[in-house]
This record gives sequence, C-alpha cells and structure tokens, in this order.
Amino acid sequence: MKLARYGRPGKEKPGLIDPDGKLRDLSAVIPDLGPEQLSDKSLAKLARLDFRKLPLARGKPRWGVPVSHVSKFVAIGLNYSDHAAEAGMALPKEPIIFLKAPSSLSGADDPIMLPKGSKKTDWEVELGVVIGTRARAVSEKEAMQYVAGYCVVNDVSEREFQLERGSQWDKGKGCDTFGPVGPWLVTKDEVPNPQRLDLWLDLNGKRMQSGNTKTMVFSVAKIVSYVSRFMTLMPGDIITTGTPPGVGMGMKPPLFLKRNDELVLGIAGLGEQHQKVIPYQAG
Amino acid sequence: MKLARYGRPGKEKPGLIDPDGKLRDLSAVIPDLGPEQLSDKSLAKLARLDFRKLPLARGKPRWGVPVSHVSKFVAIGLNYSDHAAEAGMALPKEPIIFLKAPSSLSGADDPIMLPKGSKKTDWEVELGVVIGTRARAVSEKEAMQYVAGYCVVNDVSEREFQLERGSQWDKGKGCDTFGPVGPWLVTKDEVPNPQRLDLWLDLNGKRMQSGNTKTMVFSVAKIVSYVSRFMTLMPGDIITTGTPPGVGMGMKPPLFLKRNDELVLGIAGLGEQHQKVIPYQAG
Repeated sequence: MKLARYGRPGKEKPGLIDPDGKLRDLSAVIPDLGPEQLSDKSLAKLARLDFRKLPLARGKPRWGVPVSHVSKFVAIGLNYSDHAAEAGMALPKEPIIFLKAPSSLSGADDPIMLPKGSKKTDWEVELGVVIGTRARAVSEKEAMQYVAGYCVVNDVSEREFQLERGSQWDKGKGCDTFGPVGPWLVTKDEVPNPQRLDLWLDLNGKRMQSGNTKTMVFSVAKIVSYVSRFMTLMPGDIITTGTPPGVGMGMKPPLFLKRNDELVLGIAGLGEQHQKVIPYQAG
Repeated sequence: MKLARYGRPGKEKPGLIDPDGKLRDLSAVIPDLGPEQLSDKSLAKLARLDFRKLPLARGKPRWGVPVSHVSKFVAIGLNYSDHAAEAGMALPKEPIIFLKAPSSLSGADDPIMLPKGSKKTDWEVELGVVIGTRARAVSEKEAMQYVAGYCVVNDVSEREFQLERGSQWDKGKGCDTFGPVGPWLVTKDEVPNPQRLDLWLDLNGKRMQSGNTKTMVFSVAKIVSYVSRFMTLMPGDIITTGTPPGVGMGMKPPLFLKRNDELVLGIAGLGEQHQKVIPYQAG
C-alpha cells in the first residue's frame, strides 16, 4: 500500500494511492495516519478495504508528511562507503546516530528555506524507515517486524552549522524545512528487499546523486536493531538511513544550494520529491 | 506559579502547588498541561484562579513530566566553564546544541534504568527552560518573552555511548529514563533572575555537584535566542542548559552509577528530584 497525508499544513487528511496512481480520501476510515494506524494489524485492516469505494481526492493537493505525530526523527551518519569517502571521513565501525528536530519535518514538495546566514545548505537523498510497533532492544533478525514501511527523505544539511560550529551535527541538521518526507509511506510488503533500491537526486535538472541501498554499510535491519538498543523506537518514528555519494560538500569545488534552485529526488517504488529553494523568512 | 502533572505514566492530570505546598487538581480547569496551556495568556488565566476552590490531590501521587507533548528536548553542552575543564574539553565559542530523544523523558522521581551493556552512566543536574510561545530567530533581548518557566532536569548520560562510539553525543544522551524533568514547572514570574540559582546533586547522600547558574558560559536568554536561529522553538519544548562540575566522569578515578544508587538533585526554588538506579529491563 501507498499511504499519504494531503492538504494544507496542519490540516492534512489521510489518503491512499490506488493501483491506478490516484489519490483517494481515507478520512472516513481513519482519523489520521499516525502512530495508532501503523501497527501490522491496523495496516492489514486498511489493506482489506475495497479502494473503489473510497472517494477520489479533488485537484492536486499538497503532500504532507505521510505520518503524523512523529516523536523521533533519527538519522544515521556516513552509512554509504562512497559517501564517507567524499566527505573525507573514516568509515564508521558502528552506526553513527544523530537526531533531526521534528520541527524540520516538511512535505515532499514543500520549499526548502535557507536558514538565516546560511552559505552551505546541502542535499542528501535517503531511504526513510517508518516504525510501526514499539521496539526496545530488538534483534537484527526480528527487527523488520517493527517496521511499517518506507519513504523518501531529503536529509537537508547546513554544512557550516553541522561541521564548523561545534562538534555536534544536530545544529546543521534540524533547521526548519530540512526534513522533507514522502510523498508516500509505502508499506513494507511492497518493498521485498530494502537493500536493492535505486536512489537519485537532480539539482536544476542535473543528476548529482545516484546510488543503490545495496552499498549501505549497515542494513535497515541492523540499523533498526542497533538504534533500538539506545532508545526505544515508537510507532511513527522515522529513521533516515544515510546518503549515497554526490552531495554538494563533496564536489570540487563544493556546491551549495541557492535561492530558486530546484531539487528532484526519488527512490525506486517510493515516489519523488520536488523542492524549490527559497530565502530565509522571519517569523 | 508551580505547575505539575501527576499520576500514573500516560494518565497524568494537571495540578498546581498551592502556597502551602499542597498539590491541587487542575483537571476541571485545563485538560492537560501542554503546548496549548503555556502561553502567557493561558498562564495568566491560571494565575487568576482562586486556588482554594481547587480540590486537593489525594495521597502521594507520582510526578509526571510537568509538560505534555514535548516536541523537542534540546540540550546545551559544556555550558559551565568549570565543567568543561573537568571534562577535559575546550570552552565552546558558541553554544553546542544536541538533542535528547523525547522517549528519554521521565518523571522527577522515576527510576533511572541502566541501558543494556552500560558501564558509564553518569548524572548532570541542569536548569531546564520550558518554551511558552513559538520562537524563530528571536533576539537575546526579547528571548525571555518566549519562556514559560523553569524546571529541574537530570541530563543523564552514558559516557561510553556518548564519547567512545562515534562522534555524536545523542547516542548516550537519549536512552530511556535519561531525561527526568520536574517535579514542577515554575513560571518565570517566580524566578526573577535565572542566572542566580544554586543547583546541586547528591549521590547516596554525598554531595557531588554544587554550582550556581551565574557561572554559565551562555545565559538562558542567549541560549533561547541562539537555538531559535537554528530551529523554531515550539511551545512545550524543553531546553536543558548544561551542568556545573561534579559529574562522575570528572572524578579521579571516574565514578559511574550502579544498581541501587540513589540520586537527590535540586535547584533553589524549583524543587527536588529523587531517583533510584535500576538494572536494564527488556521489553
């Protein structure tokens, strides 16, 4: 199943993408698409619906974050061997965990706002994993039972804030609009092997990133298990799993986002994001 | 005003500590003590209540986290000059920001659970600042307008996870039960100068930390302003502002928490926390 939340910010309705690619309104069936709706049982109930009976959504609505009430937005650093190389950093011996502020969450096609004073805002296409069931210290073998599905994430990063203003990356990872997620939550039954997914990103029509999740240093199952040993994962939590090579910081010379730039990024089977870069806005 | 949430985990009711130190039930007045109730206007309304008309809470209920729906639990690193020295780290030129997972939030007297495999769990008494009004890029001068009040925080930290397993501290800062907050939210009108507060921590009856917020490197106003430039602060967000000297890591030899240890910690006017250390529990 491809699930979504659509409509104006803060007023999103739950929806389903039918086999013809049409968006249908789920709001008569579930109040929202959040922690309560992500268990295997709840998702199985949705899968049994006759989608033809669901009303079609009108117009071309905005995509919201496909999951509401995200309590943790966890990120894994340097999880593709070739990206670690371009960043000039050693390959991690175990997953690097950092957190993105939930206030950075943003719809798939919402604009990316350059932070105040930013000179080094960069892109990172990533596979996002949405937790379906509370997970504490689960084994790698059982980890996938706790996953609801997958989504595209752009782990937008301000490199000066991240790397040159103290040791901790969170400062450059959690700015407002730095966490586009979606357009859809694709349930795990539609993604038989999360370690064989092509992912890519274009800047102003030029391919910048292209990779495949098979070159991850740590697999999705390993990451879910690992993170769950340090913090209990809750339904609706999102883990974004690192980026393949091709970020702006790795270019020679480095290349960063500027006003009016356009990003298109996607993952095979999980949909595409389209973002325009806008200047900082106060208030 | 001293506000609180009390009762069983997940079933907390809002309450008020009256001038005689008695806990009174606010649940007929407000549904909870969360983002909606923290604006100056909402707090002013509570302040106008005749507390004598509020029912007394029965028994000795558990303290919950005094604010519900905390979306961000922001922390500032190395913010006391003497603590930076004991940690063997350079004094930061600007605030170090990291994030504690909201799943680490815990009541003031709830036990601290040693994480699986932990050998270096440590304590940190800190002044917590609760945001009352959404703040984006606010100036230092106006920053205090966005603050609802203050609370005691124990920024519990696993030093091996924080410092020896990758570069990012979040791994050792967000474990379950690593964020005791409370017992109360004390509104800012009762704290005329947040830079003149004694804070202290006892381990098994022995004074380990004692300090005063006057030795902070960056003031509360500076911190609120600074963080708000990197991420919009939302009502109910908590910023914990760093710890004075006396943590276990700084002892010679280092001293860490073990099963059955007892912590008592507090800040002048903000109340006390009492925590027992318990072993890891699966599930």
